[in-house]
Amino acid sequence: MKALEQKILTEGKVLPGNVLKVGSFLNQQMDSDFIMEIGLEIARLYAAEKITKVLTVESSGIALAVAAGIALHVPSVFAKKHKSANLSKEVYTASVYSFTHGETYEIAVAKEYLSKEDTVLIVDDFLANGNALRGLMQIIKEAGAGLAGCAVAIEKGFQGAGDELRAQGIRIESLAIIDGMSDGGVTFRA
Amino acid sequence: MKALEQKILTEGKVLPGNVLKVGSFLNQQMDSDFIMEIGLEIARLYAAEKITKVLTVESSGIALAVAAGIALHVPSVFAKKHKSANLSKEVYTASVYSFTHGETYEIAVAKEYLSKEDTVLIVDDFLANGNALRGLMQIIKEAGAGLAGCAVAIEKGFQGAGDELRAQGIRIESLAIIDGMSDGGVTFRA
Repeated sequence: MKALEQKILTEGKVLPGNVLKVGSFLNQQMDSDFIMEIGLEIARLYAAEKITKVLTVESSGIALAVAAGIALHVPSVFAKKHKSANLSKEVYTASVYSFTHGETYEIAVAKEYLSKEDTVLIVDDFLANGNALRGLMQIIKEAGAGLAGCAVAIEKGFQGAGDELRAQGIRIESLAIIDGMSDGGVTFRA
Repeated sequence: MKALEQKILTEGKVLPGNVLKVGSFLNQQMDSDFIMEIGLEIARLYAAEKITKVLTVESSGIALAVAAGIALHVPSVFAKKHKSANLSKEVYTASVYSFTHGETYEIAVAKEYLSKEDTVLIVDDFLANGNALRGLMQIIKEAGAGLAGCAVAIEKGFQGAGDELRAQGIRIESLAIIDGMSDGGVTFRA
């Protein structure tokens, strides 16, 4: 998606440790028209699948999941990272190790929101080491639901997880794939 | 908004402690078409104001803020509840006491996303004791921005905070106001 690559080049900030900051338009401040464009592009990519649910994990994936859900006219669900008093005890869970925060957290989805009748599209803002996606896939498997594939805005291609998942036969659609990052900027996969 | 009241009556669950669970359509699983309807209704209510930003707090407010942002064609911003490694140190902060979790947390917005040029609409899923809204208003004040008002999906009118804020001259638009809750169901303000 050329518009996303352009946005990353003009508004993204490369920080030490291969961190790409896109908080100005993607995941803390959301450029609403652009977020909706991404949602429509995700819907277009998966138009041939009979998606029944969009699944993401809080918080930074929610905006894109909502936009994709609106574009696909199906519900979106987000996995919670902490146990909440309002959350049913009847949950599917998975453990996810976060390199960003250097810790393992639990993600949970109430069982009532995923079933074996569902065909699920996973949506997230970033794909780096793939741990969040793997956790969400584990939850889908536990629910006995089908996985249509994953759609992420930005894949850090140089970390390899996206290609590993593709090699396992999982459909991964990344709207921008970064193959290199440096102080000078980012290099996109051709 | 009659459609929201109807949805609360058919899909909401009243739990002990005046907890209203609307996770099936509003804040864990999102009914996408309905979320977009709410966004459009919020945009209609505030059409006369020159809103430049929608502000909410993670996580359960994000879906509605995104929908309102899409409907208003302005960016939406969410306050983070925890300090993140990716978050700039240059943040506006406020302390919020959560009755649900019985603890005080910090909310933070990067200074670059709010300025004195902004006219801000606060959006959230619930208004109960009003602490989250007050925290967000404090951040808007710190930024020197203008406050157009607040739009929430469900106000627990019987907790009084909404009317307190209105008495202070703050515009509060709630799409459904609940004046009573019991095992038997909910009573809406006429």
